[in-house]
Formats: sequence, C-alpha cells, structure tokens
Amino acid sequence: MTMQLYFAPGACSFVPHVLLEAAGAAFEAKLVKLHKGEQYGEDYKAINPRSQVPVLVANGQAIAQIVAITAFIADSFPAANFMPQAPMPKAKFLETLAWLNNTIHPTFTHIFMPQKFSEDAAAQASMKAFHVPLFAARLAELDGMVARAKAQGGQYLAAAFGHDHLTALDAYTLTVNRWGSIAGIDPTQFTHAWAHIQSLAAHPAIAKVIERERLQLNMMAQA
Amino acid sequence: MTMQLYFAPGACSFVPHVLLEAAGAAFEAKLVKLHKGEQYGEDYKAINPRSQVPVLVANGQAIAQIVAITAFIADSFPAANFMPQAPMPKAKFLETLAWLNNTIHPTFTHIFMPQKFSEDAAAQASMKAFHVPLFAARLAELDGMVARAKAQGGQYLAAAFGHDHLTALDAYTLTVNRWGSIAGIDPTQFTHAWAHIQSLAAHPAIAKVIERERLQLNMMAQA
Repeated sequence: MTMQLYFAPGACSFVPHVLLEAAGAAFEAKLVKLHKGEQYGEDYKAINPRSQVPVLVANGQAIAQIVAITAFIADSFPAANFMPQAPMPKAKFLETLAWLNNTIHPTFTHIFMPQKFSEDAAAQASMKAFHVPLFAARLAELDGMVARAKAQGGQYLAAAFGHDHLTALDAYTLTVNRWGSIAGIDPTQFTHAWAHIQSLAAHPAIAKVIERERLQLNMMAQA
Repeated sequence: MTMQLYFAPGACSFVPHVLLEAAGAAFEAKLVKLHKGEQYGEDYKAINPRSQVPVLVANGQAIAQIVAITAFIADSFPAANFMPQAPMPKAKFLETLAWLNNTIHPTFTHIFMPQKFSEDAAAQASMKAFHVPLFAARLAELDGMVARAKAQGGQYLAAAFGHDHLTALDAYTLTVNRWGSIAGIDPTQFTHAWAHIQSLAAHPAIAKVIERERLQLNMMAQA
C-alpha cells in the first residue's frame, strides 16, 4: 500500500502523523502550508474539497477526518493496537476521540480562527474572550482523564478503558495542550497531562514527528 | 443486554433511536426534557456529566457521542449492517459521519443556540446571520452526496461507499435537513435529500421513531 499524509505543522494532523510513525508505516509526509493558503488551491482541493488537513491518501484514495483516518490506520496496522477491539472499550475510546475532535478542538478554533464563525470584529473578540476560560476548563477535564488512566497504573490514556497502548488519544492530548499554550493557557498547570506529554515526547516515533513538524510543546515558554 | 437510550425529540439522538428500532433491539426510550433543563439536573449529570443527549446505557455502562454509540450498536447487531466492515469503505463511512457530527451539526448549533459561543447579544446575532447561508451551503453539499448515492442505484446514503444499507448517515441527513427548516432554510430545495427523507419516513422503524418523537419533517410547513 502506498500512503501519503497531508499535514500542517502543529495542526491536528499531528495525530495520524504520530500513528503512522509509531506503526513503522512507509508513507510520504506532504507539508501543506496553511499560512500560504495552499489548502484553498486547486491542487489541494482536488484531494480535499473541504480544504482541511489531515488527509491520508491510501493507494490513491483520500480519507479525511481524524476519526476516519484513525480507524483506517488501526485496521491497517493491527499489531500496533491503536484501537480497542471489544465493543464497549472501543465505544468508550471513540467517545473520547469524538469529544476531543468535536468539543475540545473547536473550542480552540473559536479562539484561533474566530473569522470562521463571524465576519464582525467585535463578535470575533467576544467569542475569543468567551472561549479562553472554556478551553481551560476543558483542558482541565482532559487532565482529569489522564490522571484516572495513570491512577489505574496505565502508561497511556486509553488505559482508562483497559487498553494500555499508545493511541490517537495521547497524540491529540499533546496537540490540544500545545494549542492551550498558544491561547495563553499555561499547559504546565495541567500537571498530569503535562507529565504525560513529556513522556510522550521521549517516545522515538513521537520525537521524530515533533522534529519533522518543528514543534515547541509550550509556546508560552517562548514569550 | 439491557439498554436505555436517553433522547430528546428532534435532537441528534434521533440517529441511535432509529438504529435501535431498525435493529429490532429491546431498549427503553428515556425522554430528557431539554427545554426544562433536565440535562443539567444531578440525575442526568450522573449519567452524562457533559449534559448532552444521546446517551446509550448498555448493561449499566453509559456511552455518549453519536460516533461511539453508532459503532457500539453496529457491533452489537452485526446482522443489521449498520457499518461497512472493510477498512476503506468503513473509513469513508466514518469520514461522512464525522463531518455530519463535527461540521454540519455545529453549524446549526451556532444558529439555534448562539449563547453557547458568546454571552453578547450582538455577537450572537452576528453568528446567526453568518451561519444561515453556511448551513444552507452545507446542506446542499449533503444533497449532492445523496444524489451520488442514488445515481449509483443505491437506496441509502452509504451506497456511495458500496454499502447499500440503512445507516446513521440516513438518519442524520433527515435530522439536519429538519433543522434547516427550523433555521428558515426550505428543505424541499434539496431535492435529492428531500425525496430520500420521504422514503426514509415510510420505513416502519423510522416511522415509529418519528411518531414517538412527534416530529414534523418540515417545520416551515407549519408557519
């Protein structure tokens, strides 16, 4: 199978990027320059008409959406244990992945790209102000999930569902905590998540992706 | 297995509600009165701390999130063919389900409940105005997907991925088109989706759920 992953540094494409490296997959990492608007160009719209990353192209067929790409990689590399198999643990895993994707993720989008929700500058400022404390609260909720997984002796977040393997949940946790730091929310206050992210960053596959995407985990530390 | 589905009439809980009826599952349909704020009461928060419907409780264990509940029902009733099994068709199915859930669905939320995104009345009005044409455009995109499934001789939306069975995609299509009519977007303009919804409404399991939830498919027709 030939595979190309279309990613942007620091975007949620980090999630499948980590999974592919951790699986030892042969794939081509294709950088999409969002700040140059490449996602709106005809070349990229031929791959994803919705102009978003990530997209995984497998044998010429494009898959968008984190949940779908995660399922496809899990199915393609079963030895990597990227998803629980039994119906209930799988459902609890997908519940958390969907929450990260449809709740935590867009909370940041309202701060980082409020122009996606209104053209009015005052409305954009209002949305940003509203969402910063909401984002902090949701990151605290995620921190509590990491704490529960660790309290059960787990190394990874899905240990909370009896599945102690590196999964999309860990990579997404790193991503949204890093986004918190872009929004001015100190990520080190989420002590369980922050400690977990440090250990994830030492994982060889994750370290490789952090290097390729040139990521600083705490953007506040640069200020 | 004992099952309770917590639903609210016309909410996205319609999706698992339809799947359970179509599977012939034995379950208890538990009405949550969102307009009375029951989702914020201690009883409901013990089931779902995030105060949302749907929740499916299976043998005492609660599952939230449409994607997770859909996967659990598909796994529990394999004969119903609620999800493609092969990795690529499954990925394309999940891509569409995730898009309905994280893109089309919150487009309506910004119109129907703008107070979830800002406390400022002017910002709420700005968001509503911004999202109505966006919602119409996204419903048109969904209409095109129905058209492609039908052009391939399919009866259901997942036929676009070679899986011509009733799935969550069909029930979600009915739900978001009905929401369009609440937002003042005439659902009959989406001719392929509207025709599809009429045939879905004639399906015995779906008719039963429409009756239990007392739904009008086109809220504009009441005006």
